Amino acid sequence: MEYEKTPANTINRKANKANYEVATVHSIVNEAPILHVSFVPDPYEPVPVILPMIGLMAKYGSDEDEHCYLHGYTASRFFKQTTKEGESGDPEGLQVCIAATIVDGLVLSLTPNSHSMNFRSSVLHGRATVVTDTAERLWAMEEITNSVVPGRWGQTRVPPNSTEMTSTKILKVKISSASSKIRAAEPSDEKYDVERSDVIDHVWTGVVPIHQSFGEPIPSSYNKVKDVPPNLTEYIAKANEDGSKYAQEVATKSPPK
Amino acid sequence: MEYEKTPANTINRKANKANYEVATVHSIVNEAPILHVSFVPDPYEPVPVILPMIGLMAKYGSDEDEHCYLHGYTASRFFKQTTKEGESGDPEGLQVCIAATIVDGLVLSLTPNSHSMNFRSSVLHGRATVVTDTAERLWAMEEITNSVVPGRWGQTRVPPNSTEMTSTKILKVKISSASSKIRAAEPSDEKYDVERSDVIDHVWTGVVPIHQSFGEPIPSSYNKVKDVPPNLTEYIAKANEDGSKYAQEVATKSPPK
Repeated sequence: MEYEKTPANTINRKANKANYEVATVHSIVNEAPILHVSFVPDPYEPVPVILPMIGLMAKYGSDEDEHCYLHGYTASRFFKQTTKEGESGDPEGLQVCIAATIVDGLVLSLTPNSHSMNFRSSVLHGRATVVTDTAERLWAMEEITNSVVPGRWGQTRVPPNSTEMTSTKILKVKISSASSKIRAAEPSDEKYDVERSDVIDHVWTGVVPIHQSFGEPIPSSYNKVKDVPPNLTEYIAKANEDGSKYAQEVATKSPPK
Repeated sequence: MEYEKTPANTINRKANKANYEVATVHSIVNEAPILHVSFVPDPYEPVPVILPMIGLMAKYGSDEDEHCYLHGYTASRFFKQTTKEGESGDPEGLQVCIAATIVDGLVLSLTPNSHSMNFRSSVLHGRATVVTDTAERLWAMEEITNSVVPGRWGQTRVPPNSTEMTSTKILKVKISSASSKIRAAEPSDEKYDVERSDVIDHVWTGVVPIHQSFGEPIPSSYNKVKDVPPNLTEYIAKANEDGSKYAQEVATKSPPK
């Protein structure tokens, strides 16, 4: 299943790295630890604002598609804007752009212009509304918590009390258009540079793999539980292994022509 | 030196984590491997677009302040828009928002609502213009290349040839307003949860430190240089050590009241 190519999401440059598959776009969103969400606070001024937020793509109840659920912890201005939409603004919600980027390596080639990064990036466009249904809000809070550490929700003091329910806002973004872009390969250089012995014999080329590394969990000063939960230990070990392995594997692949 | 607090950059929620110091804001931009840049392609539609880009804060020649220089590799639509500004649009440049975020840890507390992340984030507002002066363009290309790996520019085939000079666009963003936000502490929970023995005796709380880990450099299939350059080896070792150390150190600090 693919997102339709429209002027909003079509990637013209290096189109061979572009990907419109829903599964690819969504998996990058779900793997990125942080999403960057942009909106325009004043519809009459073309001045955007970006907020870093936590969220994921997920399908609720009888919904046909996965939507992006965002946790509005830090984004009071954003939520004020969004809440207003149902009243005086566009009832379909506030226009937002969501970006998820994972850096997988430094690509060091013969000339500065051919330097690059290995990365996976998704950019999604859609409309955000505040979720008001309590069951959907609780479900989204659980999904978002478990997206940080699988199984974490059920290990904590739940359900949220009334103060927590009031202070926590959940945004649901219906995606209208999206694409992803991936570079996953060794360096690539022009033939005329590779053939120059004064260049090829002196410039080291290759990839420095990068992955997000989780360290040993450090208990809080008020922690009373002796052992780190096994699901956390397993999650950390797997994420470190998968991240490191992916970054190393792509470093030796041939670039697209 | 601080950025002025204006409605555009003032952080109201958890203001004790906010920071308007120019040095802090800029250092986060320079440490983040990727910047997210947002702009509004059509000034009459409040629809933002985000592009991941590479860039840094730096001061050129006799400029009084550091500006943000962005490398326009992947952003053809953006640059079309920006180039037009000098002609028909605002000669001061295209309004952009730049976000730089570094994730330093998962903060796991007693209840989902008090879960958080340790992070450093800068958000900057300003106007982007395309740099046309050749000397400034070359200087910016060198700065950007050396921001990926210190000293890399001088180790590669330079200067760029005329094709490379034509295809590479550099944006200069003059910053009008900016702020950063930092969480660098152990978990924080409400007294009523900490005092509940059915909660405190069963929920593990603490921080999982996170840092960007650089792996062993992997030579390209056409690499002819035997040894990895020492500046690269040193940079990787230092970045790994500094990143890991910072993430661990902040994991035990007391949160702001």
